[in-house]
Amino acid sequence: MTAVSVPKSTSFDLGPARALSCRECGHETPLAAEYACIECFGPLEVAYDFGRVRREDIESGPRSIWRYRGLLPVPSNVQAHPNTEPGGTRLVQADRLAKALGLRKVWVKDDTGNPTHSFKDRVVGVALAAARELGFKVLACPSTGNLANAVAAAAARAGWDSVVLVPSSLEQAKILMTAVYDGALIAVDGNYDDVNRLAQELAAEHEDWAFVNVNVRPYYAEGSKTLGYEVAEQLGWRLPEQIVVPIASGSQLTKVDKAFREFGELGLVEQTPYRVFGAQATGCSPVSLAFKEGHDVVRPVRPDTIARSLAIGAPADGPYVLDAVRRTGGAIEDVTDEEVVEGIRLLARTEGIFAETAGGVTVATAKKLVESGKLDPDAETVLLITGDGLKTLDAVAHTLAPLATVPPSAQAVLDALANR
Amino acid sequence: MTAVSVPKSTSFDLGPARALSCRECGHETPLAAEYACIECFGPLEVAYDFGRVRREDIESGPRSIWRYRGLLPVPSNVQAHPNTEPGGTRLVQADRLAKALGLRKVWVKDDTGNPTHSFKDRVVGVALAAARELGFKVLACPSTGNLANAVAAAAARAGWDSVVLVPSSLEQAKILMTAVYDGALIAVDGNYDDVNRLAQELAAEHEDWAFVNVNVRPYYAEGSKTLGYEVAEQLGWRLPEQIVVPIASGSQLTKVDKAFREFGELGLVEQTPYRVFGAQATGCSPVSLAFKEGHDVVRPVRPDTIARSLAIGAPADGPYVLDAVRRTGGAIEDVTDEEVVEGIRLLARTEGIFAETAGGVTVATAKKLVESGKLDPDAETVLLITGDGLKTLDAVAHTLAPLATVPPSAQAVLDALANR
Repeated sequence: MTAVSVPKSTSFDLGPARALSCRECGHETPLAAEYACIECFGPLEVAYDFGRVRREDIESGPRSIWRYRGLLPVPSNVQAHPNTEPGGTRLVQADRLAKALGLRKVWVKDDTGNPTHSFKDRVVGVALAAARELGFKVLACPSTGNLANAVAAAAARAGWDSVVLVPSSLEQAKILMTAVYDGALIAVDGNYDDVNRLAQELAAEHEDWAFVNVNVRPYYAEGSKTLGYEVAEQLGWRLPEQIVVPIASGSQLTKVDKAFREFGELGLVEQTPYRVFGAQATGCSPVSLAFKEGHDVVRPVRPDTIARSLAIGAPADGPYVLDAVRRTGGAIEDVTDEEVVEGIRLLARTEGIFAETAGGVTVATAKKLVESGKLDPDAETVLLITGDGLKTLDAVAHTLAPLATVPPSAQAVLDALANR
Repeated sequence: MTAVSVPKSTSFDLGPARALSCRECGHETPLAAEYACIECFGPLEVAYDFGRVRREDIESGPRSIWRYRGLLPVPSNVQAHPNTEPGGTRLVQADRLAKALGLRKVWVKDDTGNPTHSFKDRVVGVALAAARELGFKVLACPSTGNLANAVAAAAARAGWDSVVLVPSSLEQAKILMTAVYDGALIAVDGNYDDVNRLAQELAAEHEDWAFVNVNVRPYYAEGSKTLGYEVAEQLGWRLPEQIVVPIASGSQLTKVDKAFREFGELGLVEQTPYRVFGAQATGCSPVSLAFKEGHDVVRPVRPDTIARSLAIGAPADGPYVLDAVRRTGGAIEDVTDEEVVEGIRLLARTEGIFAETAGGVTVATAKKLVESGKLDPDAETVLLITGDGLKTLDAVAHTLAPLATVPPSAQAVLDALANR
């Protein structure tokens, strides 16, 4: 477990990034398109020399995630290249939802406002910037849908080729919203875990393809930190007391936690205690199961849930999620598909925000955590809504319809309203 | 045509709004829920006393349209009430699109980033704020879809009841994205113009319903000014040389023009010349037709186009559109449904922005205006993309598909790519 520190690579300008560091054994390796430790095969993550970062520098930056470029593994001139300019999404004070959930104070981080309407634009933005610096020319990914949209759009905007692999069972909206950008979209007969394995095989054979969540994953994953940074800045430079984060690979949850710790260590916020909660769909809840059973290892499952963007049966960051949740005193819970739909509808009717199934998971999990006493009703709580309801219409279509279909007559409208 | 000036109403706090003024005869009436002149039945619009408005005041405001509250008919405390906080969307420098169109410099105003993914969140935000001040408790509208989404979401967030009337033929995405907010959604067997007439009848009978685009239309319409304000501010406090705006009722085009004039008159930007261009789908092109034939009157048509959000056969602001376009030296053009789809795909593959059919109309019209020499290729051009491709998937579904569907094998993926 001895960390071997290497000097900063002089080959690449990746801003404050200093090296890649193994999350298991701490071994350090120069910045490159690597993702597994050569010593122990553990996952690599970016290590930094931040220097001094001041609130004023961030506040005077652009409205996108690039205001945090001093904390990300990207070149300092990252804005000079065409990109989708993600981030800067709303943090909504959700009093009506809070009342419905029995919480004193709730904030909803609404990441549907991103260019392709999910948080994936953030991670892809960072991955593209790093990939360019590392010499790649093709952007690729395996995806459950949102990432496919974000990769295809970012590649189009940058003028890069893209190769996107998705399960052939994916929602039509996500298929169309990938194909429209005119990259190479390949549907694979299999589930996400099959597609992911295929991508790893292809990444090993095609060193010129930047699979954002495979061979440039250490850089890509850092993009999720911007969700945590934005929440803290938008709260007026302070940390929330509780945050509920959906779990797919688990990367997002660990990076939001990392963002809060970095802001505290850099003196950008006071180091107040916070608790991180994880949300899964019961039909794909390996991390929730491990948490409840007190395990450190996450046993893979075969996903069966309408929350397809969370349907990763073998979540790469599962163990680190367990660490973060346990360290901060949080919890992990899972909810049924019926609860997911109820969660989507609750958020919509109280706050006017239409989330995809993953957002329904977050809201329904928050409800369950309040009811079981695990979320403190008096503590300020942030819910991460990371994707858009327009992409998962099938999940709610059977529960929604117009009140009535009437001829064009005022009396017919009034009759329909009276019969509600 | 003599304007009768009335003193500012003391009943309502609507910020800088001073009175309602008839666009035809100039007659002024106190601020109220009125939309037609009692003298001549002409349409009313808001008249202001702006006082001094400085760039610094705007720049220090929130990221939403409320940074321009000093230029809108809303109470000064507008942010104190729950609202969807629209605006602050990206202005994207679109070099790849510019090259494809043969224009030197193009900016895309991407209003898909709004809370319900269209510019309608802007106008509804202003309508709700004014309606609250005017004493209403129910938010209502006839809609071609985007407005339905925005009204239902804004009402949900505010805790208001809503009544939304839509043509029963509307796209399923827009139906579901309205129903999910749990207001009263009524599908009407008829086209938009039928639904609009029905709303006018209901508005006359139900004085407690704020039909945003009927009885509070003068306030509502002002929300579109924020598109113009944002473009000018995001360009670094200056006006573009050319702007292409889609035409439905025509209100948006006239208000963008008004925004540019106001910014100039207030000294917020230099009063440089600009030309306003209008875009319609050929299947509903009454304003384009009037422009080409040199008429001042717009003859209603029966719409037949995939661009349903622009399918208003009797556009209320048609004559004012003709005025603005002719005064600034612009033009109006229309494009076929095939060209609309090509426009959507062109924008997506060059800039990674997925627009709804109305956006396809704007892009395809810009292309046609370049080809006919009406848009100056050397002048800086802004294109307004006002709605989201996820809402009009049917329009492109038949043209898009994965490159291939393959078994989970690397060789199968490579074969598919090789056979492109």
